[in-house]
Amino acid sequence: MIVILKENPEQKQLDNLIAWLKSMDLSIHVSEGTHHTVLGLIGDTTIVDIDLISALDIVEDVKRIAEPFKNANRKFHPDDMVIDVSGRKIGGGNFALIAGPCSIESAEQITNVAKQVKDAGAQFLRGGAFKPRTSPYAFQGLREAGLELLTSAKRDADMPIVTEIMDPSQLPFFENVDIIQVGARNMQNFELLKELGKTDKPILLKRGLSSTIQELLMSAEYIMAGGNEKVILCERGIRTFETYTRNTLDLSAIPLIKKLSHLPVIVDPSHATGIASLVKPMALAATAAGADGLIIEVHHDPAHALCDGQQSITPSEFKSLVDCINAILPYSYKRK
Amino acid sequence: MIVILKENPEQKQLDNLIAWLKSMDLSIHVSEGTHHTVLGLIGDTTIVDIDLISALDIVEDVKRIAEPFKNANRKFHPDDMVIDVSGRKIGGGNFALIAGPCSIESAEQITNVAKQVKDAGAQFLRGGAFKPRTSPYAFQGLREAGLELLTSAKRDADMPIVTEIMDPSQLPFFENVDIIQVGARNMQNFELLKELGKTDKPILLKRGLSSTIQELLMSAEYIMAGGNEKVILCERGIRTFETYTRNTLDLSAIPLIKKLSHLPVIVDPSHATGIASLVKPMALAATAAGADGLIIEVHHDPAHALCDGQQSITPSEFKSLVDCINAILPYSYKRK
Amino acid sequence: MIVILKENPEQKQLDNLIAWLKSMDLSIHVSEGTHHTVLGLIGDTTIVDIDLISALDIVEDVKRIAEPFKNANRKFHPDDMVIDVSGRKIGGGNFALIAGPCSIESAEQITNVAKQVKDAGAQFLRGGAFKPRTSPYAFQGLREAGLELLTSAKRDADMPIVTEIMDPSQLPFFENVDIIQVGARNMQNFELLKELGKTDKPILLKRGLSSTIQELLMSAEYIMAGGNEKVILCERGIRTFETYTRNTLDLSAIPLIKKLSHLPVIVDPSHATGIASLVKPMALAATAAGADGLIIEVHHDPAHALCDGQQSITPSEFKSLVDCINAILPYSYKRK
Amino acid sequence: MIVILKENPEQKQLDNLIAWLKSMDLSIHVSEGTHHTVLGLIGDTTIVDIDLISALDIVEDVKRIAEPFKNANRKFHPDDMVIDVSGRKIGGGNFALIAGPCSIESAEQITNVAKQVKDAGAQFLRGGAFKPRTSPYAFQGLREAGLELLTSAKRDADMPIVTEIMDPSQLPFFENVDIIQVGARNMQNFELLKELGKTDKPILLKRGLSSTIQELLMSAEYIMAGGNEKVILCERGIRTFETYTRNTLDLSAIPLIKKLSHLPVIVDPSHATGIASLVKPMALAATAAGADGLIIEVHHDPAHALCDGQQSITPSEFKSLVDCINAILPYSYKRK
Repeated sequence: MIVILKENPEQKQLDNLIAWLKSMDLSIHVSEGTHHTVLGLIGDTTIVDIDLISALDIVEDVKRIAEPFKNANRKFHPDDMVIDVSGRKIGGGNFALIAGPCSIESAEQITNVAKQVKDAGAQFLRGGAFKPRTSPYAFQGLREAGLELLTSAKRDADMPIVTEIMDPSQLPFFENVDIIQVGARNMQNFELLKELGKTDKPILLKRGLSSTIQELLMSAEYIMAGGNEKVILCERGIRTFETYTRNTLDLSAIPLIKKLSHLPVIVDPSHATGIASLVKPMALAATAAGADGLIIEVHHDPAHALCDGQQSITPSEFKSLVDCINAILPYSYKRK
Repeated sequence: MIVILKENPEQKQLDNLIAWLKSMDLSIHVSEGTHHTVLGLIGDTTIVDIDLISALDIVEDVKRIAEPFKNANRKFHPDDMVIDVSGRKIGGGNFALIAGPCSIESAEQITNVAKQVKDAGAQFLRGGAFKPRTSPYAFQGLREAGLELLTSAKRDADMPIVTEIMDPSQLPFFENVDIIQVGARNMQNFELLKELGKTDKPILLKRGLSSTIQELLMSAEYIMAGGNEKVILCERGIRTFETYTRNTLDLSAIPLIKKLSHLPVIVDPSHATGIASLVKPMALAATAAGADGLIIEVHHDPAHALCDGQQSITPSEFKSLVDCINAILPYSYKRK
Repeated sequence: MIVILKENPEQKQLDNLIAWLKSMDLSIHVSEGTHHTVLGLIGDTTIVDIDLISALDIVEDVKRIAEPFKNANRKFHPDDMVIDVSGRKIGGGNFALIAGPCSIESAEQITNVAKQVKDAGAQFLRGGAFKPRTSPYAFQGLREAGLELLTSAKRDADMPIVTEIMDPSQLPFFENVDIIQVGARNMQNFELLKELGKTDKPILLKRGLSSTIQELLMSAEYIMAGGNEKVILCERGIRTFETYTRNTLDLSAIPLIKKLSHLPVIVDPSHATGIASLVKPMALAATAAGADGLIIEVHHDPAHALCDGQQSITPSEFKSLVDCINAILPYSYKRK
Repeated sequence: MIVILKENPEQKQLDNLIAWLKSMDLSIHVSEGTHHTVLGLIGDTTIVDIDLISALDIVEDVKRIAEPFKNANRKFHPDDMVIDVSGRKIGGGNFALIAGPCSIESAEQITNVAKQVKDAGAQFLRGGAFKPRTSPYAFQGLREAGLELLTSAKRDADMPIVTEIMDPSQLPFFENVDIIQVGARNMQNFELLKELGKTDKPILLKRGLSSTIQELLMSAEYIMAGGNEKVILCERGIRTFETYTRNTLDLSAIPLIKKLSHLPVIVDPSHATGIASLVKPMALAATAAGADGLIIEVHHDPAHALCDGQQSITPSEFKSLVDCINAILPYSYKRK
């Protein structure tokens, strides 16, 4: 960490600052420039509150050199994290295919889709029971009843299930859920992250609509700091000025995160674009860029889906997509 | 609502769509263009799920004409909402000044600041007990103990208090809180909004970092649809590519929201910029643009504040700011 | 085009508006809603100035239904545009590889790189002579002398050349240039676009840092409206709040543009990310998503490149990248 | 400037780097951290090309401490720049009011508006002759003929005139123009900036739609480095995800730029919002925040303006606006 001082800092304040930094077991290296004196802080700066130092009268700017995350940092965990979910592996060269409808609508619907996406090659079943919707007048999901239908489909199809939690109070209903999803709008719901850090279930953490990659890793750090290391990161598009697509899928996040962290990274091309015809090209692009998996919305009747139908593909389209993914996978980045 | 059909839509699907729309008590007006047929839906389209229609094979695009919010819509509530908090009014020409430290640190600190900001002209005391922090290693607030200190300061200084809630499970601790704040990161924490809709306390709802004005109004609608009409909206900066400031304060949101909605709009210049020296010019600008109030971070010793010190001003700076605000207020927008 | 009127529009103004619209050979369809009357304009609305109508007192909003571009619109040109450059084809299933240094530095440098990228599989040589740099103190390119060196390299290596123009006054120097590049910062330099519309050389038009896809297509329309139909579009990253990468590469632009337009779309992964190690994964992703080609910075000694060295790869890295692209190409979107 | 080295840098490359830096008259201060060695460069780093250093194998990151601009830097020019235009002053406490139509349409129109805005209190007349329009089919301005009409209006009304240049080739027509405007889309048209740096006319430089404040100052630096110090900066809104307004007016840019630079800063509330009813509140807010002036679109008949009518106000609205500005001005930031 580098602390840039204002010109002619008051000596007493400077002494106080240096004493305080030393009390945190940091060594300080002073460097006098033409206009600025710069302090180099040497040691574990993860715990240093950058805002506290920036607030000082004598400080012009503070710049981090080391990343502020530890548990999620590849520097301290050089090997890829591999997460085992009932025998299906995610990360470390294992490609995870998660598929299913945006919302669980009925026993018949979820069971049918489950079988079809499994036949097509999906290893995990997704389906929303608690649905975050912008409008209070839009369908909010079947909630507890939806989770029960999803659990039945899990048993029938013998597939681990992934579904979204919206509040810590819903945790008791997630006992049979294999991977708990945190949606983009809850990426910085820190109370929720803390509670999930106390569980031992894998957490699929989606990047917030306006979150930087560093913030995504800091949210993973919240979960990991609580003791739960099984975090799967998910790029699902960020908000930009472009209006044709719902969001802008940031695929450079894949190789970038994998350089910074050992956690697996998957991609959601359905929510990112919001357009069914873009799911396939973006799924192939994500695969080529080295993603550890994909989460894709599949609905047997997208035109009558209760939410987000416009971005769902049909089971037969999914089957054809999986064939293309499998063809491209051997040639994707960092494989062979 | 306007539904734009693809060229040569299948007649049976079109009949189904029209029948379904009519079942929602909507009249349909068909208009044939050169390339596109357009359906005009007439009636209450608030409950129509735009995604459902967009998903249909025969539909190219759907555009709303009426706003998707009702309770928060000025069209149905032409008069400004005025919220009464223990005799202090917000909205409808009443200017609310909320001030206090980012975090509650000690009884002495909060009581001192309370008295000083009251003397300077603040009507409401703010102070954070539950603190949303990007890093799990940063100070997380005094939590329940902090709320107790804030309640004491409220009694000592005889000022209504404003503080942030992060999770519905914290609601029992908020009995003595006068205005409950929802932070930017929780603007779309819909489970929290629903719970707050069941209370009768005024809610200060901050705009999310990447939220549109329409989304902010839809989040207000969540609270209001639950029965709690007392919502105060707060512009606090949005995320852009500019890096000198922490966020970009969108002051055009003030007159725009006031045209769309009858709810009061206040501005937080401290979090928006993250720079203490910008608080004053932005506070004056917000006042001039017609804001119904300001929420400002004041700390007796910003350099030692436990969080966000760099954006806090001192009580004496606040006093001078209030004088400037009062000078400019009579000449601000929509005040004669 | 849909014109949404305010409630209770003045009849005389409405009559004037309708008469004016009819004078442009448009038919008007009037549709009365609960709160709003909507006019549907039928006919060629490309020439209608949307701002003019929006400005009218009686108009609440205007929404386009048809795209505002014609020459660049796939609706009127269903077949892919194929551009022939001295026998090398771009578009319509032909994959174009353009490579070379950011800046031309010396005869030896550009000739060496040319041969190496040609050996590795590039069909086109790129190199900057006129360099747009943020700082007036940074290297501005060799300018005319640079173009001469590039022309020599073209002859020696027998490769068509691509280089950037910054101002119409430079056109006389571009006689031997095969493809003229318009940089992101000049995408809306309309005087330049008009001049290029009068030439018969293919134009490689880069998307502006904050340009929507529709604006990119409107800039192509400027060139095409002048009579030059040979426009190659280039996605090179847009500006977002993310700070790890220089820009955010928007790969969904590829399938989206190809749906809207018949023009070829290529991708620049070097400028988009600004990080050499991200060039390969992003190049593979762009290929998988269906791009018609790539433009890649290659420098024999990136560490001593006179600009943008940090995003350049070496000729041997480029060779290995081309092998990976060729492996993935048969399985990319919309092939086979 | 701070150069952060990768772990275990190769000694020979490090020696080369240090030798090269010393050759630019910089002193180097080496600081060894736990994971990183950091070099502090001391001296004039304005001319150091940050990209060149970043590209080196042994370098992890480079961070500037001093700003990369010199001529536009308040550190070297502590007093406000005051620009004198035929006796009217801009900057240093002088408030400049520039008003007029978006486009010059006819002699009668421009002369009428000129007189009316002068009567209302405007010191400068604006009017567009060369118009940058997104669509090639939209009105492109009267061009040379428009400049002639503007020059006549200047004489008739005895007001200095401000109008936009789009290309260096248009400079000969600008002889009678008092302030040359560079539009947002040309802020990084570096060839144009260089040419303007050779003139002695004041340049009104608008911030680009996606330009940072530092980039705006670097574009000013281009003009100033050429010898023309008379640059007026203009905030006119940046591009964000918000769709209600055309752009998001960044008023924090005013106090921020004035801290960084001694150049005058004015605000364009008309283009920023694109909505006539927002011009007044945003003009008042800009004034309160300490702007050195405003540039406002005024049209005697906005509904029939040939471009951007929807953001124009009438002369009588302008008159009322000027009264409000004058009322608020004495209480604005940094005045008394």
